[in-house]
Amino acid sequence: MKYSNKEEFEKVNIFGTGVPNEKFEKYFIGNSFLNFLVEPGKTPIFLANVTFEPGCRNNWHIHQAESGGGQMLICTAGEGWYQEEGKKAVSLKEGSIVNIPAGVKHWHGAKADSWFSHISVEIPGVACSNEWLEPVNDEEYNNL
Amino acid sequence: MKYSNKEEFEKVNIFGTGVPNEKFEKYFIGNSFLNFLVEPGKTPIFLANVTFEPGCRNNWHIHQAESGGGQMLICTAGEGWYQEEGKKAVSLKEGSIVNIPAGVKHWHGAKADSWFSHISVEIPGVACSNEWLEPVNDEEYNNL
Repeated sequence: MKYSNKEEFEKVNIFGTGVPNEKFEKYFIGNSFLNFLVEPGKTPIFLANVTFEPGCRNNWHIHQAESGGGQMLICTAGEGWYQEEGKKAVSLKEGSIVNIPAGVKHWHGAKADSWFSHISVEIPGVACSNEWLEPVNDEEYNNL
Repeated sequence: MKYSNKEEFEKVNIFGTGVPNEKFEKYFIGNSFLNFLVEPGKTPIFLANVTFEPGCRNNWHIHQAESGGGQMLICTAGEGWYQEEGKKAVSLKEGSIVNIPAGVKHWHGAKADSWFSHISVEIPGVACSNEWLEPVNDEEYNNL
């Protein structure tokens, strides 16, 4: 369900908006927010809720790994998009699940007219790193 | 937030109630439901939404593994309990996260007066199996 109003969205964003995602802001268009759901290193899998303001999306990127790795998204509130290179963007809403294998170039983010949150599930692997690439083209995004 | 009414609960159970959890019903007191969020074997981590009717809980059990294994719970709707042997029960609601290491005897389920759902995140490991034990004592449960 779409939420253009932040206060209304916060009521359904049950995993929390958290704090401005300053560490990664250079890889995003628009403002995103990060809420750690577990302490890094304390659980076998790291979970964080990522919130995107309307129009916000991350740049194209690849989860690199020698083995394993990648990410799963558990969409928790609002509406957004996920796109793999060479494929049509997939519409996401609360309840949607996305599996992002290591090595696949992709981006994700909010719809232009809605806040959006997903839990990021970091898949364990060997020598995992993020390769950040170019921003998602405005014209392509605005035509979604 | 507590939901005693199934119809009201369904409105907020965004990951879906799914089907009666017949395969495991012998290990539960009360009725539980299972909604696969991914196809088994198609993603690096298996995710399912488990729903418990009010008063429903699983028996004490242990996630056994030679290495890795265990489970994380992402609580998505309603209110419930998680208890490890020898510790006080922990109250859960939408937004709560539980980390259940392999080898730890525990149970989880709904509160007596509320529906409850959590996503089960199955942690990969070697030689993983579930060891099902005795039911949670009615008197202990009713005193929570």
